[in-house]
Amino acid sequence: MKKPALTPLAQTLPATVPFVGPETQERCMGQVFRARLGANESGFGPSPKAITAMQAAAADIWKYGDPENHELRHALAQHHDVSADNIMIGEGIDALLGLIVRLYVGPGDAVVTSDGAYPTFNYHVAGFGGDLHKVAYRGDHEDPQAVCAKALQTGAKLIYFANPDNPMGSWHGADVIQAMIDGLPDGCLLVLDEAYVDLAPAGTAPKIDTDAANVLRMRTFSKAHGLAGARIGYAIGQRDVISGFNKVRNHFGISRIGQEAALAALSDTEWLSHVQKMVAASRKAIGDIARANGLTPLPSATNFVTIDCGGDGAFAQAVLSELVARGIFVRMPFVAPQNRCIRVSCGPDEQISAFGATLPEALAAAHKKLR
Amino acid sequence: MKKPALTPLAQTLPATVPFVGPETQERCMGQVFRARLGANESGFGPSPKAITAMQAAAADIWKYGDPENHELRHALAQHHDVSADNIMIGEGIDALLGLIVRLYVGPGDAVVTSDGAYPTFNYHVAGFGGDLHKVAYRGDHEDPQAVCAKALQTGAKLIYFANPDNPMGSWHGADVIQAMIDGLPDGCLLVLDEAYVDLAPAGTAPKIDTDAANVLRMRTFSKAHGLAGARIGYAIGQRDVISGFNKVRNHFGISRIGQEAALAALSDTEWLSHVQKMVAASRKAIGDIARANGLTPLPSATNFVTIDCGGDGAFAQAVLSELVARGIFVRMPFVAPQNRCIRVSCGPDEQISAFGATLPEALAAAHKKLR
Repeated sequence: MKKPALTPLAQTLPATVPFVGPETQERCMGQVFRARLGANESGFGPSPKAITAMQAAAADIWKYGDPENHELRHALAQHHDVSADNIMIGEGIDALLGLIVRLYVGPGDAVVTSDGAYPTFNYHVAGFGGDLHKVAYRGDHEDPQAVCAKALQTGAKLIYFANPDNPMGSWHGADVIQAMIDGLPDGCLLVLDEAYVDLAPAGTAPKIDTDAANVLRMRTFSKAHGLAGARIGYAIGQRDVISGFNKVRNHFGISRIGQEAALAALSDTEWLSHVQKMVAASRKAIGDIARANGLTPLPSATNFVTIDCGGDGAFAQAVLSELVARGIFVRMPFVAPQNRCIRVSCGPDEQISAFGATLPEALAAAHKKLR
Repeated sequence: MKKPALTPLAQTLPATVPFVGPETQERCMGQVFRARLGANESGFGPSPKAITAMQAAAADIWKYGDPENHELRHALAQHHDVSADNIMIGEGIDALLGLIVRLYVGPGDAVVTSDGAYPTFNYHVAGFGGDLHKVAYRGDHEDPQAVCAKALQTGAKLIYFANPDNPMGSWHGADVIQAMIDGLPDGCLLVLDEAYVDLAPAGTAPKIDTDAANVLRMRTFSKAHGLAGARIGYAIGQRDVISGFNKVRNHFGISRIGQEAALAALSDTEWLSHVQKMVAASRKAIGDIARANGLTPLPSATNFVTIDCGGDGAFAQAVLSELVARGIFVRMPFVAPQNRCIRVSCGPDEQISAFGATLPEALAAAHKKLR
């Protein structure tokens, strides 16, 4: 019996998990993390109204969710002062990124991102046979001019650009991003990942222009809204661009409980303000811990702080490993020179304190290991 | 500014919604359905234990779900007496079907299904440029021999075959399906959709053989388990075939609450037995209503009954429209001669009674309309 053959493209792809989850690490270690500060989740939790909404929706889970996500799209439209036709909901930004790549990128098509930016986007580009061009960070910022220049040079179909950036926490003001949009090469779509923008200073996001067919703004309920486990991301864009998702998306992919949770979270502006305050305080606390240990926290417009450990990638990796071994889940950038850092998510005081109490030991152990 | 261009394939695809949801119909009509019997959801609801599990998990929704779905895969492995490496979880069978097509089907590759079978599969085949060959039903059953013959003739990479079948409710015994598996052409993968198998007579599902690299068994928590809104489907297969999903899947796509709900539902065998009994009684009640109105219910191994309205597609469509206009949500097969029928999902007594009370009026109105 001859086995079924994968497509030539699929044969070239590795079976992979882009991020090893903390649960996997916990299973390997045989113990639960004391502090879950590695995935930029919101340890401050979701809006209590979202919790109530989910609990109320549980008994109705026998119904499929509305495949058009009508209520949520309309609520988001009102929130952003756009039309519901300018909004598409997906199973997290991750799923929408996959659909965007599928819609625009064929084998050999050029795509541009920053070297060390979001790996899941790169995974999707590889998955559709795109030719990924990576541009170096500049001073721990993604570099809009270099990215656009590379896109022009390669004839790129897509640019991925995050503002604020993950994993560095850095950001550009709206004027810089607007200039980038204005200078996009012809025929190039900017995928502007604004997952963290709710946690950035005012003036980070350019005004949304739903006439612009060359920009998709990516937002999520996973970060400030604390609904990572509900899988609700969305794209805002020009209506024909948004409509394109309907060619390929998994129409019934959004959980009914997630729809209800997102609606409730969106309406609870008080909780969002609370989280923003908690994140700001947590950023300061993480920064203080870093400095107290002779390390350098980088400025952050996100719900995490990236800490320069003052050495090379091997040293930061050692610090990370020693933290993980002591029950503190954190992650780090993948690419030099950003991989001199570790990345610590904001979270409740007791978790940040656990990080603070453990860091000196972890640093000492890392120094010893690499001596 | 030149707009970004979709891939040549994406340009050929329509922006579509494969199924119009009942919520959309309700919005159009300006009223809520009195009976929701159109999507083969389980109106008997999920296990109370699943509801409790979801409610308990709500506050933890700030955490991403485990991207490896470790606990659920292991629980399913134990349930099916296979290894966890033989199981892949997806955002409903719909999402897994899309991934399977993506992994195996490139532009122009042949795929075989039955004419009138699950449209979402066809949507995925079109979405990856596959060449879909449709085989007629035979006596309201999908026809294994004709399907295999067509696959051999066309060199098909994939066969889609549902047992029990949707939309007809018909089924083949395990021996027929096993013979189909044994006779698959070389290099052809059978996607065996068993979404309804928990509601079928014993002896409908062939024994699971995890050495067989040419069959993927598709299961779901959306039907008997009453978790349609949670989006949890899974595939069972040979480990290398299962591992292929890791090349292209949305690793973090499963909601954390869905994972908990599915685990609880799987463990509640008592609730499953209860639902099976309720479905059997409901099938009988729907059949009695059909016969009392001079119509012919078809035998069903699912949680719905397909009713032969005794006329052509236009007549069944009229009956359906009149039911919908009276607040009874049902659907119908798309393709002749199966479109002489309407399809009524099982559900609680009061909903079936509402259908029964409305059917005579709907039939009268349909007759009048087409006179």
